Amino acid sequence: MAHRVVIALGGNALGKNLPEQMIATRKTAKAIVDLIEEGCEVVIAHGNGPQVGMIQNAMSELVRSDPEKYITVPLSVCVAMSQGYIGYDLQNAMREEMLDRGIDVGVATVLTQVEVDPNDSAFENPTKPIGPFLTKEEAEKLVKERDYVVMEDAGRGYRRVVASPMPVSIIEIGTIRSLVETNHVVIACGGGGIPVFRTEGHHLKGAAAVIDKDFAAEKLAEAVDADTLIILTAVEKVAIHFNQPDQQKLSDLSIEDAKKYIEAGEFAPGSMLPKVEAAVMFAQSKPGRKSLITLLDKARDGISGKTGTMIRS
Amino acid sequence: MAHRVVIALGGNALGKNLPEQMIATRKTAKAIVDLIEEGCEVVIAHGNGPQVGMIQNAMSELVRSDPEKYITVPLSVCVAMSQGYIGYDLQNAMREEMLDRGIDVGVATVLTQVEVDPNDSAFENPTKPIGPFLTKEEAEKLVKERDYVVMEDAGRGYRRVVASPMPVSIIEIGTIRSLVETNHVVIACGGGGIPVFRTEGHHLKGAAAVIDKDFAAEKLAEAVDADTLIILTAVEKVAIHFNQPDQQKLSDLSIEDAKKYIEAGEFAPGSMLPKVEAAVMFAQSKPGRKSLITLLDKARDGISGKTGTMIRS
Repeated sequence: MAHRVVIALGGNALGKNLPEQMIATRKTAKAIVDLIEEGCEVVIAHGNGPQVGMIQNAMSELVRSDPEKYITVPLSVCVAMSQGYIGYDLQNAMREEMLDRGIDVGVATVLTQVEVDPNDSAFENPTKPIGPFLTKEEAEKLVKERDYVVMEDAGRGYRRVVASPMPVSIIEIGTIRSLVETNHVVIACGGGGIPVFRTEGHHLKGAAAVIDKDFAAEKLAEAVDADTLIILTAVEKVAIHFNQPDQQKLSDLSIEDAKKYIEAGEFAPGSMLPKVEAAVMFAQSKPGRKSLITLLDKARDGISGKTGTMIRS
Repeated sequence: MAHRVVIALGGNALGKNLPEQMIATRKTAKAIVDLIEEGCEVVIAHGNGPQVGMIQNAMSELVRSDPEKYITVPLSVCVAMSQGYIGYDLQNAMREEMLDRGIDVGVATVLTQVEVDPNDSAFENPTKPIGPFLTKEEAEKLVKERDYVVMEDAGRGYRRVVASPMPVSIIEIGTIRSLVETNHVVIACGGGGIPVFRTEGHHLKGAAAVIDKDFAAEKLAEAVDADTLIILTAVEKVAIHFNQPDQQKLSDLSIEDAKKYIEAGEFAPGSMLPKVEAAVMFAQSKPGRKSLITLLDKARDGISGKTGTMIRS
């Protein structure tokens, strides 16, 4: 039976710098092409934490080097650049692995914007630190000139903080669907997508925000009518009482139990919590949909029901 | 009669920095959507000189700020980033202009690699300066550690020089065709494309090169079987005896005359010469194909035969 799957890739699938990225994406491609050999149509979403941080640091150094000539590059533009930076290696690793196995499927990286809601409560309390450490003077200048929100970071200087709002819609969804339907692996929503607001008329405006890649992947999975959302991460199974003597790994997790464990604080915010939340959101979005959370190199066994944590109603 | 056109956009269509880019791309989009209203299917290629220069400068400043932590980012990766940086504004300007006029066509930026030949004679004599000015020490370090070719630049320091080889093939051409055939304006081959060599097996390797965007657009126009290549630039018509008292603007230019003028040195290298060469190459690639060179805001009049220089056999 053919599956349409959306895969969310985290940091371990991409590495933290360029040499790591070239190696990590090859390993990642092997795991994903395993799924294609199992008959899956694949759409890939991915994070960009270290990469967009590096790009922001570079742009900040450029402004420092010549403040008369250069201006600060908005976060949304840095995310756009990170989609090129990561997509380049990821699509080549996929292309090479598929050609090596004689699989005639295209691969494309689509520059993707994701709409967020300016009234999302996340904007009232931005908490996600991004970009370089700043001096007090630099921080004050950016607060004054560019409306940044900054926080002092444990004596190491100041950092900009931004909101992490929920994705509302994927602007390029028509393009992504066209490519899936014409036999492509699509890499989309890189870094959670370029965050944008819809403004008057048909205008889109870059938002100072970072969209969680698991929630973006969930939105993408609904929008391409996938039957499985696969969140590949650093653990083979989701666990309760994590790292306690009575830790219990979960193979099948009902939506009801998942919600109960979320409520009980079983999953770490910013780590397993958004993954389980995204998994639940997808599994309950339509009958028959399910979510799998597992290790990168267990993807094939996971989709076959041999390991991982499957969340479904 | 419907046309399929490939448009090559130069610096004047994109601006030199981000504030200019937002304004320039809106003006550019108006000119391109005029062509869509005339019944054209459109694929857009574009340059990236100032943008990839800025990105390289930023990456160099990052390495300068912390040489232990950061490594030099290859040119190919900088081109990939520039495709995101430019595509983001360009696709939004196109999207907005089409929606404003009630045109139901998608727009997509496709991360594009273009194959070059390692035996291209351009590699024997790299001449295109890119990236920041370097000190002698920095230049020598990069020559030693990364095989850079550098040249001293009139007392202002050293600069890296790279080759500008001819495009051989477009790796993502299948994706571009799929999108054209599913009602999309496609933005592809940004900056002439990410330059790559084919190596053993199916592997692609980034090349230290810059591909001329007019030649990349010509290759793209052949590959999508366009009937017209449109090179939008800063002049309304190609001229011979340019800037001389007997300057003569050309409306219709045969392939034979164009070759004669090229031979006679009528067109400036790095400026009008590659445009006329690319135009000739496309016009002679198949019967019925033609090339138009004109001003950005004369595109509609040009395609209607009212102005510009049309090159055909």
